[in-house]
Amino acid sequence: MGTSDSYEPNSVTGAAGYVLEDVPHLTDYIRDLPTCQNPLQDNPSYSVVKQYFVNADDSVAQKIVVHKDSPRGTHFRRAGPRQKVYFEPDDVHACIVTCGGLCPGLNTVIREIVCGLYHMYGVKKVLGIDGGYRGFYARNTITLTPKVVNDIHKRGGTTLGTSRGGHDTNKIVDSIQDRGINQVYIIGGDGTQRGASVIFEEIRRRGLKVAVAGIPKTIDNDIPVIDRSFGFDTAVEEAQRAIHAAHVEAESVENGIGVVKLMGRYSGFIAMYATLASRDVDCCLIPESPFYLEGPGGLFEYIEKRLRENGHMVLVIAEGAGQDLLSESIQSMGKQDASGNKLLQDVGLWISQKIKDHFSNQTKMVMNLKYIDPTYMIRAVPSNASDNVYCTLLAHSAVHGAMAGYTGFTVGPVNGRHAYIPFYRIIERQNNVVITDRMWARLLSSTNQPSFLSAKDVIEDKREDELPTQMLDDEQYSDDNNMVNKDFSHAL
Amino acid sequence: MGTSDSYEPNSVTGAAGYVLEDVPHLTDYIRDLPTCQNPLQDNPSYSVVKQYFVNADDSVAQKIVVHKDSPRGTHFRRAGPRQKVYFEPDDVHACIVTCGGLCPGLNTVIREIVCGLYHMYGVKKVLGIDGGYRGFYARNTITLTPKVVNDIHKRGGTTLGTSRGGHDTNKIVDSIQDRGINQVYIIGGDGTQRGASVIFEEIRRRGLKVAVAGIPKTIDNDIPVIDRSFGFDTAVEEAQRAIHAAHVEAESVENGIGVVKLMGRYSGFIAMYATLASRDVDCCLIPESPFYLEGPGGLFEYIEKRLRENGHMVLVIAEGAGQDLLSESIQSMGKQDASGNKLLQDVGLWISQKIKDHFSNQTKMVMNLKYIDPTYMIRAVPSNASDNVYCTLLAHSAVHGAMAGYTGFTVGPVNGRHAYIPFYRIIERQNNVVITDRMWARLLSSTNQPSFLSAKDVIEDKREDELPTQMLDDEQYSDDNNMVNKDFSHAL
Amino acid sequence: MGTSDSYEPNSVTGAAGYVLEDVPHLTDYIRDLPTCQNPLQDNPSYSVVKQYFVNADDSVAQKIVVHKDSPRGTHFRRAGPRQKVYFEPDDVHACIVTCGGLCPGLNTVIREIVCGLYHMYGVKKVLGIDGGYRGFYARNTITLTPKVVNDIHKRGGTTLGTSRGGHDTNKIVDSIQDRGINQVYIIGGDGTQRGASVIFEEIRRRGLKVAVAGIPKTIDNDIPVIDRSFGFDTAVEEAQRAIHAAHVEAESVENGIGVVKLMGRYSGFIAMYATLASRDVDCCLIPESPFYLEGPGGLFEYIEKRLRENGHMVLVIAEGAGQDLLSESIQSMGKQDASGNKLLQDVGLWISQKIKDHFSNQTKMVMNLKYIDPTYMIRAVPSNASDNVYCTLLAHSAVHGAMAGYTGFTVGPVNGRHAYIPFYRIIERQNNVVITDRMWARLLSSTNQPSFLSAKDVIEDKREDELPTQMLDDEQYSDDNNMVNKDFSHAL
Amino acid sequence: MGTSDSYEPNSVTGAAGYVLEDVPHLTDYIRDLPTCQNPLQDNPSYSVVKQYFVNADDSVAQKIVVHKDSPRGTHFRRAGPRQKVYFEPDDVHACIVTCGGLCPGLNTVIREIVCGLYHMYGVKKVLGIDGGYRGFYARNTITLTPKVVNDIHKRGGTTLGTSRGGHDTNKIVDSIQDRGINQVYIIGGDGTQRGASVIFEEIRRRGLKVAVAGIPKTIDNDIPVIDRSFGFDTAVEEAQRAIHAAHVEAESVENGIGVVKLMGRYSGFIAMYATLASRDVDCCLIPESPFYLEGPGGLFEYIEKRLRENGHMVLVIAEGAGQDLLSESIQSMGKQDASGNKLLQDVGLWISQKIKDHFSNQTKMVMNLKYIDPTYMIRAVPSNASDNVYCTLLAHSAVHGAMAGYTGFTVGPVNGRHAYIPFYRIIERQNNVVITDRMWARLLSSTNQPSFLSAKDVIEDKREDELPTQMLDDEQYSDDNNMVNKDFSHAL
Repeated sequence: MGTSDSYEPNSVTGAAGYVLEDVPHLTDYIRDLPTCQNPLQDNPSYSVVKQYFVNADDSVAQKIVVHKDSPRGTHFRRAGPRQKVYFEPDDVHACIVTCGGLCPGLNTVIREIVCGLYHMYGVKKVLGIDGGYRGFYARNTITLTPKVVNDIHKRGGTTLGTSRGGHDTNKIVDSIQDRGINQVYIIGGDGTQRGASVIFEEIRRRGLKVAVAGIPKTIDNDIPVIDRSFGFDTAVEEAQRAIHAAHVEAESVENGIGVVKLMGRYSGFIAMYATLASRDVDCCLIPESPFYLEGPGGLFEYIEKRLRENGHMVLVIAEGAGQDLLSESIQSMGKQDASGNKLLQDVGLWISQKIKDHFSNQTKMVMNLKYIDPTYMIRAVPSNASDNVYCTLLAHSAVHGAMAGYTGFTVGPVNGRHAYIPFYRIIERQNNVVITDRMWARLLSSTNQPSFLSAKDVIEDKREDELPTQMLDDEQYSDDNNMVNKDFSHAL
Repeated sequence: MGTSDSYEPNSVTGAAGYVLEDVPHLTDYIRDLPTCQNPLQDNPSYSVVKQYFVNADDSVAQKIVVHKDSPRGTHFRRAGPRQKVYFEPDDVHACIVTCGGLCPGLNTVIREIVCGLYHMYGVKKVLGIDGGYRGFYARNTITLTPKVVNDIHKRGGTTLGTSRGGHDTNKIVDSIQDRGINQVYIIGGDGTQRGASVIFEEIRRRGLKVAVAGIPKTIDNDIPVIDRSFGFDTAVEEAQRAIHAAHVEAESVENGIGVVKLMGRYSGFIAMYATLASRDVDCCLIPESPFYLEGPGGLFEYIEKRLRENGHMVLVIAEGAGQDLLSESIQSMGKQDASGNKLLQDVGLWISQKIKDHFSNQTKMVMNLKYIDPTYMIRAVPSNASDNVYCTLLAHSAVHGAMAGYTGFTVGPVNGRHAYIPFYRIIERQNNVVITDRMWARLLSSTNQPSFLSAKDVIEDKREDELPTQMLDDEQYSDDNNMVNKDFSHAL
Repeated sequence: MGTSDSYEPNSVTGAAGYVLEDVPHLTDYIRDLPTCQNPLQDNPSYSVVKQYFVNADDSVAQKIVVHKDSPRGTHFRRAGPRQKVYFEPDDVHACIVTCGGLCPGLNTVIREIVCGLYHMYGVKKVLGIDGGYRGFYARNTITLTPKVVNDIHKRGGTTLGTSRGGHDTNKIVDSIQDRGINQVYIIGGDGTQRGASVIFEEIRRRGLKVAVAGIPKTIDNDIPVIDRSFGFDTAVEEAQRAIHAAHVEAESVENGIGVVKLMGRYSGFIAMYATLASRDVDCCLIPESPFYLEGPGGLFEYIEKRLRENGHMVLVIAEGAGQDLLSESIQSMGKQDASGNKLLQDVGLWISQKIKDHFSNQTKMVMNLKYIDPTYMIRAVPSNASDNVYCTLLAHSAVHGAMAGYTGFTVGPVNGRHAYIPFYRIIERQNNVVITDRMWARLLSSTNQPSFLSAKDVIEDKREDELPTQMLDDEQYSDDNNMVNKDFSHAL
Repeated sequence: MGTSDSYEPNSVTGAAGYVLEDVPHLTDYIRDLPTCQNPLQDNPSYSVVKQYFVNADDSVAQKIVVHKDSPRGTHFRRAGPRQKVYFEPDDVHACIVTCGGLCPGLNTVIREIVCGLYHMYGVKKVLGIDGGYRGFYARNTITLTPKVVNDIHKRGGTTLGTSRGGHDTNKIVDSIQDRGINQVYIIGGDGTQRGASVIFEEIRRRGLKVAVAGIPKTIDNDIPVIDRSFGFDTAVEEAQRAIHAAHVEAESVENGIGVVKLMGRYSGFIAMYATLASRDVDCCLIPESPFYLEGPGGLFEYIEKRLRENGHMVLVIAEGAGQDLLSESIQSMGKQDASGNKLLQDVGLWISQKIKDHFSNQTKMVMNLKYIDPTYMIRAVPSNASDNVYCTLLAHSAVHGAMAGYTGFTVGPVNGRHAYIPFYRIIERQNNVVITDRMWARLLSSTNQPSFLSAKDVIEDKREDELPTQMLDDEQYSDDNNMVNKDFSHAL
């Protein structure tokens, strides 16, 4: 039985600086749990696989570029099926909930949790929670079977419905307990995973044999540690359509400016990759890279230059870019939406107005601006083939982990290998574009836009380099550290 | 000056079994080559990047799952820009050639070699070789500038033209020498890379200061070592369309069978991933997994069962599957096409006929078969966003390597990090789906198809597991070894 | 009660050569049928429409270009809702059957018959017949409600299933009688409509109060009288994808030839419109335009010329083109498929082989041919927006007609106006491309291909022009007579 | 020579109320113009066509549903090639200009004017005017050849550039005169055609041998007389994507409302057809159908009802809908943009805010609204196959007309036949959705939305029906009068 109220991370250290940041296990707080053989070993599809089960000691290294003498650093437990499981298939009563905004692939993850439980483990009882966290206590559940979910991966959105907020820990855990649910799959962003962590804590406090598995969902790719989040690849692909339209509009008129707002409240990954993939973009503004409008080196100067050279331009802006400028303009910040994210003003409409004002007031130049906000058209598409395969692996990882008795964990690929990651590593900070990094330099080079950094910024930044390598943490070690996490991008 | 005729691999060994399989360098056979500062350090886009240049000692490990005591194994030189370059930008005279079949992304690679040379290094002279290897001596060249290549990534095919064969080493190297070319970028499959290796050998023999860089191109993903080949992701996506059509056709008639042939002469990756992504496929046949038609556990039995259960089915077959069966049927094998690949009979038409014959002769079942061959419709599409970004990194890696004086190398991501790989590692063998592996097991589980393996096969396979781990090479170590190379798939 | 066994067309003549080719009505053979008010007049959606009901005397003229003194010619009864209906909504028991090959829009037609009956007339009992004609007697039926069909228009294929043949008149009419069905909606091509005509005759002979309505379905657009058939627009759109791929393949190699086979057993409309829309096609071969391979003015000569000029070419061939040449080559004709259509050999594979043989035997030219057969990928797509709207009007026309007591009719737009057309006009002959017409001339002009007509052919053709205009029938009157029927193409 | 300053319509009347509203001809004001044989008669592509040339007396009737005794009504001159032309091909100096907003198909029209002049008539001199009307006097021209325009139909936008306004009649006609241009092709909406009319008047006043041909361009389909405008079909197709996304977003949340704004300042055709094609829309608001928000029968009541029944809804609103309500809310109307159209406020943002306010203030219902404005993503796509064929016929009609000496005309299909229409008929009024018509009734029936008409409105409307038929003009005669002009929709 669990005795302490606050969870202590299961950190294991080893030789040469090896650290395993392990995930909790049901046996941490419930003694003498019986195990049984993993039914997969009798499954004809798997019986031909050599060494099918993951070795108990396998771990995945977070640090991939190592120096001879550097400490080995952080590792995570490898995901995959285990020889022994802590649930009899007939006893499993699983539930799935989706929270937060739409993201391509939600239905594929739902489908594959259901089909994975059913086909791999013979689990028959899976419930869908309707409409996010509040569905646990305020709605009826939905019975999920392989037949019900068979075609849902071809549709966008989430078949379970979703919502923001609605997290009432006690009501949720009461509902879990009352319904006899013993595996909880929670799909959502960092706010949702924070909620999942609290649910796990309460379940542990109550000493329930309930595994809690989080599947990180963020179209923005702003969750740390994992290589990329599902739906991101589809979103970058779909964003091409809007950028292309902006380019056609801009090219067809005198001094045409096409402005496209893309997702990215705190992280500019979609904007950055969509820009790199398209090659029609002349300027990409993201939350991580401050910029200014007026004066030498400013945005207006660059736009004027670009129009004079090319006669048109395309500007991509992430929804969270330029928030400091926006809040100077508008003194109406600070509202909270139900999930706790700051309600950001629409930066796309704001920057469009600013540019229009500048050209009508400050210059003699004619200018034609067209603004496109494809956000909901991107979020609502079904996931592409690459995300479909990814979502399958993610769902199966979660199922293997829960069956093996792990709990309070989230899943995701780390350097190409799926791993179990403790909640605190996912929710403690965000994944961001590092603008002193080669990937951003590549973007600057491809767009020719200014860096908006003063000489002083650069010098200060450079001084950090002089720190001895071994003092740097994993994230700062590499000059390519946003690439460490992005197998998608195959860093140089 | 080079003195020997046969090239010795640059292998460097280190402590704890560390092996660096290095690539050749111009200074291997030309002494006292002058260097100059990399012009990137003055490029405003790159000047803000900390530690922009790759450290001279950086290498990328091929083995990612290591045991405490296992040898560290093979490493490759990390790709990226170097502090010193061996070419003055004004002296560079580069050329680009594309060989073999079409593959999404060819134009993006061409574009980014041109733009990379031009924008990053200030190189102005880039030639396109027309129509593959024979273009070196039998055709005029095409002048390539950023303006000329600006929009080519939006089109399928290759703007340079391509062909199979035509490799005449002496004529090609004569042409390189006569035209004063000193950087050669060769985009093509394993046959083409074999040709590139021979060109490099001849250039080294002649002692020319000419860097030869290969960019591996194979829509089938059958090149080893690298994570995945460009165009593969696009091909899997586009294949969904054909599978979906086959499914609609099959569903709309009594006992409908939709047969889709996909690319894959020796490797079934496209068929496997397209099947996993679609989830509408009932059977996937690939070259790596032998199958049989008649009798218990055979294909016909499975088809009949599936039709009885579901009323329809979809069969995906890779073009190289079942070649042994096909050659039994037809005694007309052994022809060679110009690139040296075996000319395979059309297995899609063959299997369709076999199934029709079986049902008309052997059973009383009505059956409606529709055969779809989307090969050329897949090959000809432009690359998707993900492949566009990948092609950019690939092209820039090649450019950085050639500028830094490396030669006789190919580029590609290894565990998510771009690296320089010696030719012999790319051409010595093929990347294949490992059918005793979890990914294939997942496919079997999702389709419910038989493994076509007899108990005896499995037992023999299992015995290999008992070999001590340290005896296994990199490729066999992991139970998931086709995943080691596939960051695309995020192995569990 | 009907007394005669063979149906006499309801022809009504009027002044100035006016002919109304009317459709049968239940009252033709059942006397004293009661009528009731059309429930639409109380429907809030329709109550605001002025003159909502079609005037009893409205007819649609087939001839649109009239001379002052020419006879007024053929007219058809205008489609649409009537003031009086011959069925009480509660008494209606409708069924829907789909026969023959797939065609985009089938599901939309099914959906709109169900929704039209339900929402416009309050009819609740609609059955789907499973798998074509034989479903009447060999299968269970499917209950159709607005909820069941709500999303089917987003999917390709037919939700009811389809088949060829299986037409057993007595069993079908027995089934209709036994099940108490009194409205039969039959969706299919000319063979199917011929079957519908026979069913109608038998129903009339038995004196049953059963309305039989045909909805003409032919992706080839080969049904006469009506402007175009549903699915045709979608098919032409989807064919662009294959032509584009063929173009990319052809452009990327030396003397590349891309061959695309498109649907069209007897009519080349898809090939012609796909060629006109694409503008990448160098030669279009259709059943209506004989061609020859060898010698001056032949296909091979043209291909050689085109390759010499452009270095590549794209050839589009309708599946029914060159059948005379094909049958000379292959002496295996004369088989019949279940629906009675001639089983045609695959002309695409045949012409590809012929071209390859010619180039390997007869010329010194290198040549690279790529063959694409997108047939099943085209047939299986969902209908586009334009076809969706068209299918809605078609379905509603059929419903209005049956409710009004008309029977033995088919529906379709004539010069942009939906009309009821007697079966014999639809099945007596086919709609064909007229190659002495401006539209075909436009195609020849855009491809630059030869007409394959000898001077003698042309002269004979020209002589027909000298016939006095009034001697020409409707179809021959216009020099643009394939345009008369094609509002899609907006004839000059 | 022209003597009067104001142009008198060329109206010809005939027996039985026949009226030919003819277009001007160069010979109206220039006497003794020489003619020559149409070079098409020697074109091999056309030489096989019987009766290739349009008969001098051919006219196209606007009225298609005629009563026995009703007057024959308005006719237009049939478009197409004439036996005699008024320009020697070598003497032709043509120019093309595009004005106003983007519309799919602009590049196809440009391409086909160039290719039509070149290939059909042997005309070699064609200029593109850069950036709309002001390009005549403020910019350099662009030389257009078949090679230059070969692939432009595959791209969206206009390769010539476009702008609003900039119409200075004297400067434009001076430029035409100074450059020696004698055929002017003007592609644009009603404002642009009004400008073309003025240019024609000035050219006539100066007595110049210059043919002025207008090609009507309006994505909204709001130009009268013609069947539909080019680009409309593509726009309806592309709008499906936005509606589908709105549906997915709405379905995935509690009481989700998806709002999609579509083009249509004065005419709701795009909104109406997109709604009918999609079948996922619950409410469609267009300029022609007034609506109100509050109270019984109002929009808010309907939304609440729909959410209670279905849990979500999709609302499509044309940009010009509800302008009276909007202007009540906002007192900032009356501004004019450069082309003279009223600058309308963004009704999509406005209605979204109104709905949000209502739900937060007036009701206890939770509600989630997502607003999508796909306007620029729709306008910028390339035209689909159907529009490509249509644009070809349109361009060729214009070329045939100008070569034959007609001037001051616009082209377009009337009841499926291309015709020459005098400017005044195109610009005098707009094409609108008639809401007392069957097509709108069909929409109301498919969405179930209220008609927003009071009983009194309907009664007044009905009274108009009582007017004797012969008093009604063409437009009002038919109960289906928006269908008369829409062959696209195949009226019942």
